[in-house]
Amino acid sequence: MKRKAGLPPGTLIPPEGTRNGIAPLITIIDYDANKYQEKTVTSLEECLPFKATDTVTWINIDGLSDIPLLERIGRSYDIHPLILESILNTDQRPKIEDLSTYIYVNIKMLQYLETAHKVKIEQVSLIVGRNYIISFQEDVGDVFDPVRERIRKDGKIRKYGTDYLAYALIDAVVDNYFTVMESLGEQVELLEEALVSNPSREMLMNVHTLKKDMIYLRKSVWPLREVISGLERSDNDLIRDATRIYLRDVYDHTIQVIDTIETFRDMVSGMLDIYLSGMSMRLNEVMKVLTLIATIFIPLTFIVGIYGMNFKYMPELDHPYGYYGVWVVIIAVTVTMLLYFRKKQWI
Amino acid sequence: MKRKAGLPPGTLIPPEGTRNGIAPLITIIDYDANKYQEKTVTSLEECLPFKATDTVTWINIDGLSDIPLLERIGRSYDIHPLILESILNTDQRPKIEDLSTYIYVNIKMLQYLETAHKVKIEQVSLIVGRNYIISFQEDVGDVFDPVRERIRKDGKIRKYGTDYLAYALIDAVVDNYFTVMESLGEQVELLEEALVSNPSREMLMNVHTLKKDMIYLRKSVWPLREVISGLERSDNDLIRDATRIYLRDVYDHTIQVIDTIETFRDMVSGMLDIYLSGMSMRLNEVMKVLTLIATIFIPLTFIVGIYGMNFKYMPELDHPYGYYGVWVVIIAVTVTMLLYFRKKQWI
Amino acid sequence: MKRKAGLPPGTLIPPEGTRNGIAPLITIIDYDANKYQEKTVTSLEECLPFKATDTVTWINIDGLSDIPLLERIGRSYDIHPLILESILNTDQRPKIEDLSTYIYVNIKMLQYLETAHKVKIEQVSLIVGRNYIISFQEDVGDVFDPVRERIRKDGKIRKYGTDYLAYALIDAVVDNYFTVMESLGEQVELLEEALVSNPSREMLMNVHTLKKDMIYLRKSVWPLREVISGLERSDNDLIRDATRIYLRDVYDHTIQVIDTIETFRDMVSGMLDIYLSGMSMRLNEVMKVLTLIATIFIPLTFIVGIYGMNFKYMPELDHPYGYYGVWVVIIAVTVTMLLYFRKKQWI
Amino acid sequence: MKRKAGLPPGTLIPPEGTRNGIAPLITIIDYDANKYQEKTVTSLEECLPFKATDTVTWINIDGLSDIPLLERIGRSYDIHPLILESILNTDQRPKIEDLSTYIYVNIKMLQYLETAHKVKIEQVSLIVGRNYIISFQEDVGDVFDPVRERIRKDGKIRKYGTDYLAYALIDAVVDNYFTVMESLGEQVELLEEALVSNPSREMLMNVHTLKKDMIYLRKSVWPLREVISGLERSDNDLIRDATRIYLRDVYDHTIQVIDTIETFRDMVSGMLDIYLSGMSMRLNEVMKVLTLIATIFIPLTFIVGIYGMNFKYMPELDHPYGYYGVWVVIIAVTVTMLLYFRKKQWI
Amino acid sequence: MKRKAGLPPGTLIPPEGTRNGIAPLITIIDYDANKYQEKTVTSLEECLPFKATDTVTWINIDGLSDIPLLERIGRSYDIHPLILESILNTDQRPKIEDLSTYIYVNIKMLQYLETAHKVKIEQVSLIVGRNYIISFQEDVGDVFDPVRERIRKDGKIRKYGTDYLAYALIDAVVDNYFTVMESLGEQVELLEEALVSNPSREMLMNVHTLKKDMIYLRKSVWPLREVISGLERSDNDLIRDATRIYLRDVYDHTIQVIDTIETFRDMVSGMLDIYLSGMSMRLNEVMKVLTLIATIFIPLTFIVGIYGMNFKYMPELDHPYGYYGVWVVIIAVTVTMLLYFRKKQWI
Repeated sequence: MKRKAGLPPGTLIPPEGTRNGIAPLITIIDYDANKYQEKTVTSLEECLPFKATDTVTWINIDGLSDIPLLERIGRSYDIHPLILESILNTDQRPKIEDLSTYIYVNIKMLQYLETAHKVKIEQVSLIVGRNYIISFQEDVGDVFDPVRERIRKDGKIRKYGTDYLAYALIDAVVDNYFTVMESLGEQVELLEEALVSNPSREMLMNVHTLKKDMIYLRKSVWPLREVISGLERSDNDLIRDATRIYLRDVYDHTIQVIDTIETFRDMVSGMLDIYLSGMSMRLNEVMKVLTLIATIFIPLTFIVGIYGMNFKYMPELDHPYGYYGVWVVIIAVTVTMLLYFRKKQWI
Repeated sequence: MKRKAGLPPGTLIPPEGTRNGIAPLITIIDYDANKYQEKTVTSLEECLPFKATDTVTWINIDGLSDIPLLERIGRSYDIHPLILESILNTDQRPKIEDLSTYIYVNIKMLQYLETAHKVKIEQVSLIVGRNYIISFQEDVGDVFDPVRERIRKDGKIRKYGTDYLAYALIDAVVDNYFTVMESLGEQVELLEEALVSNPSREMLMNVHTLKKDMIYLRKSVWPLREVISGLERSDNDLIRDATRIYLRDVYDHTIQVIDTIETFRDMVSGMLDIYLSGMSMRLNEVMKVLTLIATIFIPLTFIVGIYGMNFKYMPELDHPYGYYGVWVVIIAVTVTMLLYFRKKQWI
Repeated sequence: MKRKAGLPPGTLIPPEGTRNGIAPLITIIDYDANKYQEKTVTSLEECLPFKATDTVTWINIDGLSDIPLLERIGRSYDIHPLILESILNTDQRPKIEDLSTYIYVNIKMLQYLETAHKVKIEQVSLIVGRNYIISFQEDVGDVFDPVRERIRKDGKIRKYGTDYLAYALIDAVVDNYFTVMESLGEQVELLEEALVSNPSREMLMNVHTLKKDMIYLRKSVWPLREVISGLERSDNDLIRDATRIYLRDVYDHTIQVIDTIETFRDMVSGMLDIYLSGMSMRLNEVMKVLTLIATIFIPLTFIVGIYGMNFKYMPELDHPYGYYGVWVVIIAVTVTMLLYFRKKQWI
Repeated sequence: MKRKAGLPPGTLIPPEGTRNGIAPLITIIDYDANKYQEKTVTSLEECLPFKATDTVTWINIDGLSDIPLLERIGRSYDIHPLILESILNTDQRPKIEDLSTYIYVNIKMLQYLETAHKVKIEQVSLIVGRNYIISFQEDVGDVFDPVRERIRKDGKIRKYGTDYLAYALIDAVVDNYFTVMESLGEQVELLEEALVSNPSREMLMNVHTLKKDMIYLRKSVWPLREVISGLERSDNDLIRDATRIYLRDVYDHTIQVIDTIETFRDMVSGMLDIYLSGMSMRLNEVMKVLTLIATIFIPLTFIVGIYGMNFKYMPELDHPYGYYGVWVVIIAVTVTMLLYFRKKQWI
Repeated sequence: MKRKAGLPPGTLIPPEGTRNGIAPLITIIDYDANKYQEKTVTSLEECLPFKATDTVTWINIDGLSDIPLLERIGRSYDIHPLILESILNTDQRPKIEDLSTYIYVNIKMLQYLETAHKVKIEQVSLIVGRNYIISFQEDVGDVFDPVRERIRKDGKIRKYGTDYLAYALIDAVVDNYFTVMESLGEQVELLEEALVSNPSREMLMNVHTLKKDMIYLRKSVWPLREVISGLERSDNDLIRDATRIYLRDVYDHTIQVIDTIETFRDMVSGMLDIYLSGMSMRLNEVMKVLTLIATIFIPLTFIVGIYGMNFKYMPELDHPYGYYGVWVVIIAVTVTMLLYFRKKQWI
């Protein structure tokens, strides 16, 4: 948001990193209990006729680079400029804004990139009106295909209004969280096993990266709780009573995801403890060996050093069994020390 | 829940790991203050006649693999599809859902597996209606036998309605928590003693496992608080006033279990501190021995090294008492150092 | 509570560890502003006549082993079975239960055992009715003597009802906490001094024990807050308005005790830090000495080793001042190293 | 605030470090939808005529040293003495005070000083009245230029009242936070990379400084949450309903900044862990080398020491292959130990 | 409070450590907008005439040893016995008690003893009635002189009632906190610098003492928040609306003090980290030197040991360049090792 600083509220600037010049992909799905229509359009004007009908119209827009399009949508559907700005501000927390004629909902869609071992976060904005939903995504590709399939196949969804469609979209996003959590859980367990069997500095970095991932995930998922419960308790009549139990259900799922993230965080913290105590254990073991060696051989080296002295008058040197006597002393000292160590439970 | 992602809400899929093809075990207990009947049935149809009677009917279903059965139950008792889905989602947190004609309660039944030193968690779902309770369990085998016994023996329970039966079932589950807590408590104490007397890396792993167990237990028990207090404060007239004091009692027990878990967590954290400080203590002791040895013998070895030199002109070598003089020096140095160490409180 | 699991609610089982066969000690104190009577009775029947009078009757029962007695009390005074069960469940948290005709209060009486350096926790249950209080204790011996004395001496207490007596009993228990806190505080300070002057592994165990004591104390005292504030805010007319300021006062004392426990916990945690850093400091000091010795003598030993070699052609050996030259080298090396160490601030 | 202690409330003393004798810079911007006027004035009297008009008047005062000016403002605009004192107390937390005829808001303007790697914190006080805003800053130079530009260019802002101007000013301050956060984020990442690649004591100090910076930032930003939400929920009719959505928007931004600070704090804490474990890793590696050297050469030195003894009768010395035999022993011992170390995974 | 245990509520016992036999110092200040009177009295009876007047009477009592005086005050001003007891219980937390005809406020006055580097905590109790305030202090000497001065000089304070005087006294106490905080802040910074430049065990003890001081300060200041906000929100008409803004102001100051204490706590915690990592850094450095010495000289000593053996048949010994050859080997080994160390970045 750095570039925005100082501009008036409602100034529309595509999010950082958006590829310019690529036209957003606009698809329309229009349905009611009896009929169904789906098409890809190139201009907003093709969407407008649906405004007058009673059918549910779902306009999905992939890509946020086309500011004039967004402005035209704002004018056509009477969207508050701050909401348009919010759609483009992809760094923000999930939130809900009830503007009485429509409800703005903003959630995060997660995707686990297997190869990079990273979680990609994409913002999805929903404008939920009386007979339309406009959804905005950063890129092509989403988790909504099952919802589309259910509409096409004349599922129960066709009998309900936009509030149920909004629920279905949010539910698809939250359901996908479980998939992401499962991948993360596997990674957590792999790392844990590796840390126990063979700790290394590189693994420590992985733990650290995982910890940061958890922080970001938490930031994305935690506010969702309030968003969904805000939607469920909304007194806006866009949300019908029959839909509330579904929202409560997706709310419970969100809590479950949050619980899972917290569990992972606890586990990752525990890992660091294992790692550090493993390190200290290893140091201990190394020190013990060093002590044994030093404790046994340093005195012995002193003993043989004595008889390496060149004094003229050293009675032991001339004794015929002197050499063997030294060996006796050496063996006696060694055995004594080994017994002492065993008593101390060092060996 | 991974496999479910994208399916419409209310899609029924047996929980992961469920053995297919095994028909669930259905048992019916039907009673009022005067009469009592108990039987094992093979189809839902045998249960339906009880719907019309005023007696309390408890239908218990062990096993969640038979989706068509569940769907028939849903239709017969008018259960919301999301509730049916919840029954199958065994990963979720305990929750309560009040649907006015019935209340859905979902709790966790714990079992301490002595041999594996692990706590097994099984989900129990209760549908509490006007004159029936349907309970769903993942496997055969539960903690409800005492309740059954009390019904058979014409206990006080026969005089009350389904709300009291629901309380009795929840109470049986929570009472069982104390048994599990006791087993865990014993393990915590055993581990603590072992850590103090003889810390090892393997024990550290046990501490870590125990810590993870605590995290999972906490996740299972903590939300129970809200579930039971939700039941107690429910304004649904399925819950009679006379039952509320019993619910408050089981609520107090839940708090007691949560307190115990928190105490165990504190203890296990304290253990890690003991372990680490024990390690550091040991390292210290080892270092002290090493230092003593090195500090005493390294200078002595230097001294005898001097007189091992082969210089032609070394007056001491020719001195008749040179050798004895060296011994005097050696003893003097040793005694001085020992006194210094004693002053430093190292020996 | 393990043995209880599965029994119907209200099943009365004496707490674990209760000595059977020992009849409980029952004492009655009956008073109003004008008259006063005190006696020890052997059966409940001697208490019953006081039920009909308007005087305040305090029945104190020491010992929980006599289940039939308890059941008779339950019947005579119309006590809910769950309350009777609570009286026997000595593991539970302090709680308050308002049953309109009487209030059940359950608190913990502490006793510091000087010899064992341990805090003994005993449960006290109070049944506060219109014109009677029944108190249950686990053992003979309590902190209520001052209250008895005040009743005997016609203190202000004689002018008030059972609510004031209940307050006086709770106040006596909480006042006693301060005595216990003082003993604990002394122990904390003794331990702290000992840790600073001469840390040892045994002390670490004492810190650990103290920490566990704090955890148990906290569990006993913390819920008292809610109990007393529940009593103070109770809308049951058993609690007169004039008594509320006294309850607020004892509430403040409870907060003060909780504060003290928290302070002790903080201190004990701080102690562990002192201990560990003391250990690491000591290790450091030991390492420094080792390094100095090794750093000085290992090179010197090498030097004298050189001239211990038996080569035929070693010019230095034949030099008349060779030996003295080696001493010069030895002294030069030693001085250089000592200067280097001083520069590094190691000595 | 030390100097103030003991003075009556409302005593006006310039904040510590204020340069005296420098007259504050007063600028006025006066506008409504139709006209616009901007000027720099030298006395308060030039501002007063605007009080009577309906236009929005923004009086900005840079510098807090001129106490008499402040007192005149207090009298002219009927400002409570405590508010005037608050304006001068630059150490206080952001706060809002609603005095019905005007609202006092106090926020912190941040500035990242690139060269010093520090964040400068400056207090901005706003007096928001019916048709005027008076803003007080500690120094010349602020983040309000874009707001001024929007007024000059006849932006939407000209159509709204003082509440919108207040919003615009707060929004400018909060927008600037993102710039500061970005600079801090870069520094956090640089430090993290440096710590991983090459940890040093100096970096530890940087981590510590960063940590302290975070503490101060948190103190400045955290209360802003309450300030803005207090403004948004104010029932003072100075705040029009149309402005509330804007305030909610800036509230969301504040939450986003707080989230970012918390994330940075977590990261900085994680850094310390990395640093310490890196240290311990290094110590470990060093110890391993020391152990290897000592373990291999100390026994060998003992062996050669044996044959350096000068006993008359040592059979090995006279043996023709004695010397070579010793070499065989030396090599055998070395190889054995190396194999042992490899087995232990030390090399 | 140990000695009190068991006594009836309202039993008055001077706080521990009070010097008996020293009569408390009683001073009266009586004023309204027009007149002003100040005198030191020796008996309560001289105070009583002021009860009947409409002027504000501030009776200040230094010293808590005179129990009969306190009892007379209790009777004359109709003070509840528990309040009198509270005045003497100097260990308790700050609290507020509203008894409708008067408000009892209890706060802590801090004093930084420069020489002992300690904070002295003294309890101040205020009885705020309609036309009088009675303040109780433990010792002579307080922070109220500026308030007295303002009364004497006919300040604004003379125009207000007892509520404003109570505010002025509390404000004086809180203002003084800032002075104490500043002294503490200086000490924190001094200690931090010292820890960085030259850590020692003694400093560790200072950090520990500082930490304990913070714990006590926190206990004294934290509850003040509730006290002042309780006063501000009181519906007792002793507190006039005009005074509330002043109370809000002192409330803000209290928050600021609490913030400062929390910041100091964070800093002191951070110090311990610095200290410990400094220790570990030092140990590391020492270990490195030891390793270098040992790694270089131990092998060399072995080499020269070889040629100190006395075997008859050692070809190298007879070789004319044998001795020089050994030197070549020694230098080669040394250089190789130094290069290896440099590669490892140990030197």
